[in-house]
Amino acid sequence: MHLGAMLYPTGYHVAAWRDPDVPPRAGIDFAHLSAMARAAERGKFDFVFLADSLAVRGRDLQALSRTAIRYIGQFDPLTLLPALAVVTERIGLVGSASTTYNDPYHIARKLASIDHISGGRAGWNLVTSQNEDEAFNFGADAHPPHAERYRRAAEFTDVLKGLWNSWEDDAFVNDKASGQYFDPDKVHVLGHRGAFFSVRGPLNVPRPPQGFPVLVQSGSSEDGKDLAARMAEVVFTAQPTIEEARAFYADVKARIARNGRDPAEVKVLVGAFPYVGRTRQEAEDKRARLSALIDPAVALSLLATQLGSDVSNHPLDGPLPEELPDTNQGKSRRALLIEMARRERMTIRQLCEFVAASRGHWTLMGDPGEIADQMQTWVREGAADGFIVMPPTLPDGLVSFVDLVIPELQRRDAFRREYAGTTLREHFGLRRPPHPAAVAPEAGA
Amino acid sequence: MHLGAMLYPTGYHVAAWRDPDVPPRAGIDFAHLSAMARAAERGKFDFVFLADSLAVRGRDLQALSRTAIRYIGQFDPLTLLPALAVVTERIGLVGSASTTYNDPYHIARKLASIDHISGGRAGWNLVTSQNEDEAFNFGADAHPPHAERYRRAAEFTDVLKGLWNSWEDDAFVNDKASGQYFDPDKVHVLGHRGAFFSVRGPLNVPRPPQGFPVLVQSGSSEDGKDLAARMAEVVFTAQPTIEEARAFYADVKARIARNGRDPAEVKVLVGAFPYVGRTRQEAEDKRARLSALIDPAVALSLLATQLGSDVSNHPLDGPLPEELPDTNQGKSRRALLIEMARRERMTIRQLCEFVAASRGHWTLMGDPGEIADQMQTWVREGAADGFIVMPPTLPDGLVSFVDLVIPELQRRDAFRREYAGTTLREHFGLRRPPHPAAVAPEAGA
Repeated sequence: MHLGAMLYPTGYHVAAWRDPDVPPRAGIDFAHLSAMARAAERGKFDFVFLADSLAVRGRDLQALSRTAIRYIGQFDPLTLLPALAVVTERIGLVGSASTTYNDPYHIARKLASIDHISGGRAGWNLVTSQNEDEAFNFGADAHPPHAERYRRAAEFTDVLKGLWNSWEDDAFVNDKASGQYFDPDKVHVLGHRGAFFSVRGPLNVPRPPQGFPVLVQSGSSEDGKDLAARMAEVVFTAQPTIEEARAFYADVKARIARNGRDPAEVKVLVGAFPYVGRTRQEAEDKRARLSALIDPAVALSLLATQLGSDVSNHPLDGPLPEELPDTNQGKSRRALLIEMARRERMTIRQLCEFVAASRGHWTLMGDPGEIADQMQTWVREGAADGFIVMPPTLPDGLVSFVDLVIPELQRRDAFRREYAGTTLREHFGLRRPPHPAAVAPEAGA
Repeated sequence: MHLGAMLYPTGYHVAAWRDPDVPPRAGIDFAHLSAMARAAERGKFDFVFLADSLAVRGRDLQALSRTAIRYIGQFDPLTLLPALAVVTERIGLVGSASTTYNDPYHIARKLASIDHISGGRAGWNLVTSQNEDEAFNFGADAHPPHAERYRRAAEFTDVLKGLWNSWEDDAFVNDKASGQYFDPDKVHVLGHRGAFFSVRGPLNVPRPPQGFPVLVQSGSSEDGKDLAARMAEVVFTAQPTIEEARAFYADVKARIARNGRDPAEVKVLVGAFPYVGRTRQEAEDKRARLSALIDPAVALSLLATQLGSDVSNHPLDGPLPEELPDTNQGKSRRALLIEMARRERMTIRQLCEFVAASRGHWTLMGDPGEIADQMQTWVREGAADGFIVMPPTLPDGLVSFVDLVIPELQRRDAFRREYAGTTLREHFGLRRPPHPAAVAPEAGA
């Protein structure tokens, strides 16, 4: 079982910032975030995970002013990760960076730098920008269409791999006596010209210790699954029930095989939003305390973002409207919520609470045994290779998981007791991609 | 006197990498760079300084393979600085980032993040891309003209300041009881639409601890000096003689005054390339050892970059040709070299050696007293407010400066014995820019 720890600064629950134990300026509190990364490392998590947005999400400042979770005030992940690399030793460091509003040369350099600084612990969560607020910060008047964003993401990732292969692993001979610094035959100038990018190269950073940082992919739409099948090494998805998760898992693994790749080499991690208590009652109390702090207007606004349309003019205690307009923003989470609301006959109010808590992710609650049982069931029944744990609050949500659930999983031999390797690839059991020049032509064809 | 320490990974001398004491993969050796930042902090330097290039400089791989200083394999500065923030406590952290091939929203976020992570120690070296190799990594077939690059740099900086002012200092009220996270009246949505950029804002990071990171500007052309006069707080320049430095200093300070700013609030720092020994002989030996390691072909290629034209078809022991074609790359260093070569009747070979060592920066040599004498003279005679020390090699060039020259300057009361403040602005005695909304209309007009 593989585990990531999402370091959403306050915790993932919409009302977490109002919890008395959550630090007041969690998003820019480096000591807090360091302590959380170290707690996850103490729990032998494979990696910490930083989500991102290139804009404050939403334009209604009055509504926004009552929430801390719309990426309002927090660090840029690729700036925070190098600092977290210094305060940790073994845990992987995965950050999101958008392929829609970035240049590949910058991202290739930054990720390669983080991989070197951390000794091979970097991972990249490949995302396309979902929220059109990001467009307006980057000179665009409109957000590119969904399919185009995915075509760009695929080309972006190809460029990154090409840039990471600019130098063979042993290109730098550093022969002080002869004055030969590198072997010019071991440099590969990319010369990429594609539909979206023109990038000459070479990258001005040596090949990363891991070959490439681990490639995580987070979109679960049809376009997202196809991209994952082609190039992801880890897939991160929101699946609220085991049935949906099993169907997704089978679908993605089949697509991977159809792409000629070994399905075992791609890990599917499901978001898990756990309320952990020493007893079930304590876990339920944690949930109730946070639920009482949810601001209904904030929850409605979050729901509008996830659906891509505002339903606040419909009765709160009635169902979702039959027809919802299509959207050019994120597609998979929207479909998941509509499907769940219909299947479980949820009112808009119930859907609001669900969105405010886990934003569509699988919710677990209970004592350590109950939590561990459910996680093991999902892995055993082909619903997940592991989980990205999204603590409702920080520090408690993570620390209670580390102190209570991890030892339970370890007792059952369901999770590592110690890191076996030093790189994120080693934590996952993923192979280090050889440089193409080191692969025999037959094998590389 | 203010001092910065340039952490060019191997040291600044072109042959530094061949010195037996320089670590073999200095550019990606985080332990080495950490140790250097800590050494500079032990010496009470105002800041460490990271230069940058968004490309390997040059396309002739055979020629490049014999040098380590063409930005071939080293970290992205804005990725390295957050890691250095963690291993230091007081020293300022200044990194270059190009205004030509970056989006302002990204740079505003990253610098604001570094300022928060470091507790107010960030500075930004505002540069325009000089080298056209950078263009080809960012989808451009040609480098924009010099004047256009500077117009873009000015607008870029205005956008950064606007984004850093997105939130008033006390915007985040974090009232857990009432559920008010921030005060919507204290958010300022930028809504910038200019010739080069369209950026809505607000920034998704709170206002930096320093208000703005300290703005350093490094171009010394006419366009560069005008930009510095308008918005720089620190000017970094290459001036090989005290006469040239005094003229530059007077010129820049006059331009600042003409812009209605107080010249005392802008610090002019001159690059200083010191060979430090316990005795003059030891310093001379250090120079001779490095000179013997210079590869003539590498030096000729460096000279070609700085002149914007290749002179390798002219006799090495003759003068520079009378006519050199104009260039669309960096202008000020080119003019400086041509002027110096003519004035001092230097041969191409001599110019090559000068460029290979200090790349046009002021060269000092001697025992600690001699070095301190010269630095004090330059400050006393209106040639500089301080220096960016460019050690010929690392670690020795920096460590010998810290252990020998700094104590000599301290004995003379010419340099601080201890940090008085905790932010880079405090080290410089620069005021923290108030948020425009906190300034009375009269004072702000």
